[in-house]
Amino acid sequence: MGIEKGKFVTLEGCEGSGKSTQIEKLKKYLSDCGKEFLFTREPGGTRISEDIRRIILNVDYENMTDETEALLYAAARAQLIGEKILPALDRGEIVLCDRYIDSSFAYQAYARSLGYDFVRQINEVAFTRCMPDLTLFFDISPDEAFQRKGGADADDRLEQSGTEFHRRVYEGYLMLCRKFPERIVRIDARKTPDEVFALVKDVLTERKIIG
Amino acid sequence: MGIEKGKFVTLEGCEGSGKSTQIEKLKKYLSDCGKEFLFTREPGGTRISEDIRRIILNVDYENMTDETEALLYAAARAQLIGEKILPALDRGEIVLCDRYIDSSFAYQAYARSLGYDFVRQINEVAFTRCMPDLTLFFDISPDEAFQRKGGADADDRLEQSGTEFHRRVYEGYLMLCRKFPERIVRIDARKTPDEVFALVKDVLTERKIIG
Repeated sequence: MGIEKGKFVTLEGCEGSGKSTQIEKLKKYLSDCGKEFLFTREPGGTRISEDIRRIILNVDYENMTDETEALLYAAARAQLIGEKILPALDRGEIVLCDRYIDSSFAYQAYARSLGYDFVRQINEVAFTRCMPDLTLFFDISPDEAFQRKGGADADDRLEQSGTEFHRRVYEGYLMLCRKFPERIVRIDARKTPDEVFALVKDVLTERKIIG
Repeated sequence: MGIEKGKFVTLEGCEGSGKSTQIEKLKKYLSDCGKEFLFTREPGGTRISEDIRRIILNVDYENMTDETEALLYAAARAQLIGEKILPALDRGEIVLCDRYIDSSFAYQAYARSLGYDFVRQINEVAFTRCMPDLTLFFDISPDEAFQRKGGADADDRLEQSGTEFHRRVYEGYLMLCRKFPERIVRIDARKTPDEVFALVKDVLTERKIIG
C-alpha cells in the first residue's frame, strides 16, 4: 500500500447542531481556495450504498431489528470506503464525510444500546483501514438545540420520547470525545454560524488540512 | 429468556450437491408426518431480507466489495433470526434453513479470503443467539458434482476459474466439519437421492429432531 496523501475529515453532531450549515460553508470555502476535495454523506455516497440507504430509511420496515440496521449502515460504509474514500485519499484529496463511524457509535451503540464492541466489530473495515484523520463534533445539547429552534409541544409524548433518544445520542458523542481525544475536536455549536465557521477554519488550519 | 423448545436445522453444500432435492424430500416427509415446521432460505426469508437479497444478487453491482457483500448477508440473516427463526423456535417448531452461517464461512471467509474471524464477528447475532442444533452438509466435491452433471467445456477459462472457486468453497466446508464436529454431520451426497434421504432421516432420528 502506498502512503495515503489525502486527509479524511468527518463531521458529526446531533439533530439541530447546525452541521449542515457548516458543511455548506466549508464546501464553498474549499472550492474558493481551489482545493481538490470529495464531499460525501452517510448512509449513501455510492450507487450500492444509496440502494442500502433506501432500505434503511424505508418507513414500511418498522420491524427492522436494531442489529440489521447497524449491519446495513456498516455495509453501506464498507462500500463507500472501498469505492470512494480510499481511492480519493490515494489521489491526495481531502475527503469530507457528513456522518461516519461515530454516528454508528452514538446512535446504534449508545442510544440503541447495541454496545460499543458490537458496533466496533461490524465496522472492522472502517476501524482498521479508514479512520478519519479528524472529526469535527458540533457540540450543542439536544435541549439547547431544541430551544434554539423555538421549541415544540412539550406535552407531545412522541416529541418527549424523541428528546430522550437524542439526549442519549448526545451522551454517546460525549463518551466518544473522551475515548478519542486526539481525533475528535469539539466545536462550540451554540455560537453564531459565522463564529462556528471561524472555529472550524482554525481547527483545519491547525491540523494542516488547509492553509 | 424462555427455553427454546424448537430445533434449528440448516442444510449446506456446494453447487450440484443435491441439496435442493433433499430439501424437497424433507419438506414432504415432515408435512406427511404432521410436524410443525418453518422452512426458509438465505439470503431472504423476510420482506426486509428479500430486499437485501435483491441488492446482493443485482448483476449491475459487479463492483460490490467482498466486505459489503458479507455485511449484507449478515444483515439479511440478523433480520431473519429476529423476525422468523427465534419466534418459530420459541413456538416449539422445527426450523429448516437452506444455507446459513456456514455458507458465509465457506464462501466469504474461506473462498473469498475474508477470514474466519471477520465473518465470525459480523455474524455475532447468529453466533451468540441462534446457532443451529444440527447442520447437514451434503458432501460431494465440486469435481465429482461436475462430472455427475455431465461436465462442461474444460477449455472454458471462466468455467475453470469457477471450478477453482468452488474447490475453495468445498475446502472451507471441510474445515468447518473439523471445527464443529458435533454440530455438522457429513452426508455422503454421492449416493442416489433415495439413499441420501435415508441417511438424512437416520441423522434426524438419532438427533431426536424427528421420530
